[in-house]
Amino acid sequence: MEFTAIQIATLVNGIVEGDNNATVNTFAKIEEGHPGAISFLANPKYTNHIYNTESSIVLVKKDFSPERPIKTTLIKVDDPYATLAMLLDMVNQLMNPQPIGIEEPSFISTGVEIPEGAYVGAFTYIGKGVKLGKEVKIYPQVYIGNNVEIGDNTIIYPGVKIYHGCKIGDRCILQAGVVVGGDGFGFAPVSSGYNKIPQIGNVEIGNDVEIGANTTIDRATMGSTRIKNGVKLDNLIQVAHNVEIGSNTVMAAQVGIAGSTKIGENCMVGGQVGFAGHITIGNNVMIGAQTGIPSNIADNSRIMGSPATDIKDFARQVVYIKNLGKLNSKITEIEKKLNK
Amino acid sequence: MEFTAIQIATLVNGIVEGDNNATVNTFAKIEEGHPGAISFLANPKYTNHIYNTESSIVLVKKDFSPERPIKTTLIKVDDPYATLAMLLDMVNQLMNPQPIGIEEPSFISTGVEIPEGAYVGAFTYIGKGVKLGKEVKIYPQVYIGNNVEIGDNTIIYPGVKIYHGCKIGDRCILQAGVVVGGDGFGFAPVSSGYNKIPQIGNVEIGNDVEIGANTTIDRATMGSTRIKNGVKLDNLIQVAHNVEIGSNTVMAAQVGIAGSTKIGENCMVGGQVGFAGHITIGNNVMIGAQTGIPSNIADNSRIMGSPATDIKDFARQVVYIKNLGKLNSKITEIEKKLNK
Amino acid sequence: MEFTAIQIATLVNGIVEGDNNATVNTFAKIEEGHPGAISFLANPKYTNHIYNTESSIVLVKKDFSPERPIKTTLIKVDDPYATLAMLLDMVNQLMNPQPIGIEEPSFISTGVEIPEGAYVGAFTYIGKGVKLGKEVKIYPQVYIGNNVEIGDNTIIYPGVKIYHGCKIGDRCILQAGVVVGGDGFGFAPVSSGYNKIPQIGNVEIGNDVEIGANTTIDRATMGSTRIKNGVKLDNLIQVAHNVEIGSNTVMAAQVGIAGSTKIGENCMVGGQVGFAGHITIGNNVMIGAQTGIPSNIADNSRIMGSPATDIKDFARQVVYIKNLGKLNSKITEIEKKLNK
Repeated sequence: MEFTAIQIATLVNGIVEGDNNATVNTFAKIEEGHPGAISFLANPKYTNHIYNTESSIVLVKKDFSPERPIKTTLIKVDDPYATLAMLLDMVNQLMNPQPIGIEEPSFISTGVEIPEGAYVGAFTYIGKGVKLGKEVKIYPQVYIGNNVEIGDNTIIYPGVKIYHGCKIGDRCILQAGVVVGGDGFGFAPVSSGYNKIPQIGNVEIGNDVEIGANTTIDRATMGSTRIKNGVKLDNLIQVAHNVEIGSNTVMAAQVGIAGSTKIGENCMVGGQVGFAGHITIGNNVMIGAQTGIPSNIADNSRIMGSPATDIKDFARQVVYIKNLGKLNSKITEIEKKLNK
Repeated sequence: MEFTAIQIATLVNGIVEGDNNATVNTFAKIEEGHPGAISFLANPKYTNHIYNTESSIVLVKKDFSPERPIKTTLIKVDDPYATLAMLLDMVNQLMNPQPIGIEEPSFISTGVEIPEGAYVGAFTYIGKGVKLGKEVKIYPQVYIGNNVEIGDNTIIYPGVKIYHGCKIGDRCILQAGVVVGGDGFGFAPVSSGYNKIPQIGNVEIGNDVEIGANTTIDRATMGSTRIKNGVKLDNLIQVAHNVEIGSNTVMAAQVGIAGSTKIGENCMVGGQVGFAGHITIGNNVMIGAQTGIPSNIADNSRIMGSPATDIKDFARQVVYIKNLGKLNSKITEIEKKLNK
Repeated sequence: MEFTAIQIATLVNGIVEGDNNATVNTFAKIEEGHPGAISFLANPKYTNHIYNTESSIVLVKKDFSPERPIKTTLIKVDDPYATLAMLLDMVNQLMNPQPIGIEEPSFISTGVEIPEGAYVGAFTYIGKGVKLGKEVKIYPQVYIGNNVEIGDNTIIYPGVKIYHGCKIGDRCILQAGVVVGGDGFGFAPVSSGYNKIPQIGNVEIGNDVEIGANTTIDRATMGSTRIKNGVKLDNLIQVAHNVEIGSNTVMAAQVGIAGSTKIGENCMVGGQVGFAGHITIGNNVMIGAQTGIPSNIADNSRIMGSPATDIKDFARQVVYIKNLGKLNSKITEIEKKLNK
């Protein structure tokens, strides 16, 4: 598969600046460019690479104009990253088409209907009363407990485990090793130690949700743990029982959310952040990496630190702490003066 | 299944305050109550919900008396949470009975005896010399290495991996994706990089232990990594080689414990806490979330912060740090005065 | 299997100090020693144990001389830890020989060649076009996607998932539950939420790499996520798309590395460390546990804290913070004086 700059520009509604006949057959990051590759420039941090890149074509923003001569051919588009995504998607579907059909041996409980266009990989287990949407792709070694429901076009990668009674929407992607619906961590102290609180709720995941590898989402004690439409969770995240995550909230890897906490819509959460239990986080909140959040956070907050504070205050605190040595010296100096 | 307030009160040794014939057929959290549901009130943070809840019945403590009129029927008990747990357990066992028997295909090594009342799910692998207690429930896609021993009534959820030679007690619960007995992280530096130290010990888990989804417990280099009776570990926890965790200690998700560290009994450890290697933590220690622990901790300590400090000192430090701006202003002021 | 001190000394090129005929048949940690066991002493923290250990033999450094009488027999060697590793390895290979052959049922795509000396466990899935090196050991319930390449003598423990197109070198060890090649976390914001950026790159892992249980390594958006020769990753680590980790770098458990970050050679990274995306870490960098790294780090740095700072500065800051109460008192004192 080879495409010229003018072919791609037509496809993506862009404008060629350079050689209409520049040809590409692969993708490369701009800093790893090579002849025959198409790259993109979206992050200004990478702008200097455009003057040296060996890539034959680079997607740039409509308003980008180089400050020095460049060798590569530009295609100007509204959103280079989104355009790249579209091209990647086309190529990906050509090169790695999703599988179809039922592989053997698999374990499909009596009465479960495998819809047309679906894939069930070898060594996958499907419990009783399971309902599968059309075109679902269930890779090998997946466990789907009794009475689970999975929507249309959802992809479940190898080794995912979904406990009984959980619901997953349409167009979701669960990466390998995800666990949905494990028991919430609930115990009642008794004289001899702890008694387990049975966890009889479930997990409900909306549409267009992506969940990263080995992330765990516990079932509710009662009711549901809820992941709303469009949420994106990275790898190794912990979502405890009865948590709710609002629409289009995005979380980087290794975040932990304790029980019954509610997180709003359109939040962005950095890696390794921890949320206490039973708190409420507003909408559009941005949270820096490794932040620890002990209490409620208002809409539109930007927070960082452990315990969390306003991100500007956090930045000031870091400077103050860095200067504590000088501060101590100043005070010693003052004391000397005063003692004279 | 429908029960009246008086039926439930009889069952749980409680006292009805309100309508003896109030009927319920499900559970709900008090803040999500609805007609036909039973809820409970244990955490005082939730007391205000009792005046508005739509639940038909609420379990409360014997000494609770409402300050305003309420619509719901109360059942007064010694411990509402424990009572709820008992009710949940009864319903759970009715609605989700544990499976029984051997599903095919499974891989059971010659000579391994599957006890009566046991369950072995499809695609589960059982190595040579494995000993299984009565009524063990081993879900699909579990791996049990050679010479593993598992006690009576233990439940192993889908996809758990237990390496050779490990021992697990009675009435344990291992949630999906748990790895027990992977190699400890031991390497000897050599000129070309690192040589692996073979890990020839094992993991020994006591009775009544619960281990959360995707938690990993490494085998000992020599001897045993030990998880004592009644320990509860949440999801995504790392327990390194030769660690010991004392009885009835409870850890929230994403805690990490480095090699050879000993943790006492009845400790409570918050989420994302990190323990250095080769240290000793006493009994009854309470550790706040995200704490980092570089050295030994005495019995009954309450600690927080990274590096860990007494929890009261930590709270004071947070305030002092918050006020560093004011402190700096004061000093500038003092300097001005002195220079005059 | 029983060995005398003189037999072992001959094998490991050491010198006996004590009873040539002291006999051992097992290993023990020096602080858990018992008659019939061999132990080692490398960490000076443990020196006092040598005077009380019940072990029959202890491996010590050539320059060690006891300050008090001891009961145990010493074998003096250049490097006790490396010597122990060698002995452990011999015993381990005798007691837990690696399996060989193909177990049924397994799923091996047409055309895939299983080399002589290889092991393919039951319920393992091998996709199309997969290339396996000689003596590879693939345990049960492993998923190997299309066109994956695995080098000679590599061991893949149960339940590992390797997505299509990834490459793994020679003599690697992947512990149970590892996920290699899951989609990188890439989304382009659009008005309705986020569009997924297809991840069409792969993961390339060099030779002699060990990866801990349930660690996740994402495939590159374009190009490769790269783990170089000799890298050792502990459990539950997150390696995002397009990350590079240089040769012989070692990371403790629960570290998280965000997208496109490059880490140098011979680094040592403590547990629960977080790296921001798109940064560069030099060679020979040592990073304390729980450090958060927002920006580039030079060669040979030793850093700690969140945000990261030089480790000596960090230690000073901790002391200054601890003394903030006293500092505040001093200033109040000064103000009083001045106001008089």
